[in-house]
Amino acid sequence: MARRHDPNRRSRIIDAAIDCIADYGVAGTSHRKVAARAAVPLGSMTYHFVSMDELLTEAFTRFAATISETFEQRLAAAEDRTAAIAAVVDLIHAELQRSKREQVLTYELYTLAARKPQFRTITQNWMRASRNALERHFPPDTARAIDAYIEGAALHIALDPNPQSRQLTEAAVTKLAASNAPL
Amino acid sequence: MARRHDPNRRSRIIDAAIDCIADYGVAGTSHRKVAARAAVPLGSMTYHFVSMDELLTEAFTRFAATISETFEQRLAAAEDRTAAIAAVVDLIHAELQRSKREQVLTYELYTLAARKPQFRTITQNWMRASRNALERHFPPDTARAIDAYIEGAALHIALDPNPQSRQLTEAAVTKLAASNAPL
Repeated sequence: MARRHDPNRRSRIIDAAIDCIADYGVAGTSHRKVAARAAVPLGSMTYHFVSMDELLTEAFTRFAATISETFEQRLAAAEDRTAAIAAVVDLIHAELQRSKREQVLTYELYTLAARKPQFRTITQNWMRASRNALERHFPPDTARAIDAYIEGAALHIALDPNPQSRQLTEAAVTKLAASNAPL
Repeated sequence: MARRHDPNRRSRIIDAAIDCIADYGVAGTSHRKVAARAAVPLGSMTYHFVSMDELLTEAFTRFAATISETFEQRLAAAEDRTAAIAAVVDLIHAELQRSKREQVLTYELYTLAARKPQFRTITQNWMRASRNALERHFPPDTARAIDAYIEGAALHIALDPNPQSRQLTEAAVTKLAASNAPL
C-alpha cells in the first residue's frame, strides 16, 4: 500500500477538509480547496480518497471524536451522580459552546446526515459514545433522555441571544436524572 | 411602492428560495438559481431583495412560521396537561419527523445562525413561539426545559438509524413536566 509511505499527508488532508467545511460548508468544499489548504498536489486527493464522500466521512468522524473525547473526559472525572449532573451542566453551558467553528461543523454534519442517510453512521456512533459516557452514572434510558436534553439545550443556548440560566439547566437535568419516575 | 403592484412575485421568489435551500443548501443557493426556479427575470431579484441575506431572512422566517403553526395547533388542541404531554410525544416522533426537506431546512438555518449572529433573531423568535405554545400547559421554566428536550429528541430520532421508543420519550417528557422538582 503506497499510502503507508506518507501517512501524514492523508491525515493533513483530513484536517484541511475540516477547516474547509468550517469556512465554506460542505456545499462549498471542493477537492481543489482542500488540496490548496493542505498544501498537497490536487492529484494526491484522488490518490488518498476515492470520493468526496469518503473524505467527508473521515473529516466528520475525526471531528466527532474530538468532541466526544471532551464529553467522555468530563463525565469520567465526575465522582458521583451529583458531580455528573454538574458536569452535564458545564458541558451544556461551557464546553459545548466553546466556538462558532465547532457549532458550524456540528450543524453541517447534521445537515449532511439528513440529506444522505449513509452519514448517519457517524451521528449514530457519536450518540452511542455520549450515552456510554453518561451510562457511567445513569441507567441507559435515563442516559438517553439526558443526552437528548444536552443536545437541545446546547443548541438553544447557542442560537438564542437571550439564553437560559445554568440554574434552569441544572433543574431540568436533575429532573431527568431522578429515579422516582418511569425512566 | 412599486412592490405593491406584484406582491405574488415577491412571495413566489421566497418560496423558490426555500426550495433551492432544501435542494442545494444555503451555500449553493444563488440569485440565478432562485430566479430560474421562481420563473422570474434575474433583474427582479435585486428589485425585490436588497441582498441575499434579506432573501434568506424572508425564506427562513416563512419556513419557521409553517413549522411553528403545526406546533402551536397541536398544543392548542390539547385539553389538559396529560393531552399536552401526548401532543409533545407526537410532535417529536411524527410531525417533526415529517420530511427530510424540513430537517434539512432546519439544520441549514442552524448552520447559518451559527455562522452569522444576525440570523439568530429567526431562531430566537421560533423558540419564543414554541415556548409560548407550551406555556398554555406548563409554567415558563418547564416549557423552556421541554422545548429543549423536544429539539434534542427530535434531532436524535432523525439522525439515529435505531431511534428511541415513544415510551422512553413519554417518560422523559413526563419527568420534565412534573411539578415536584426545582423547575
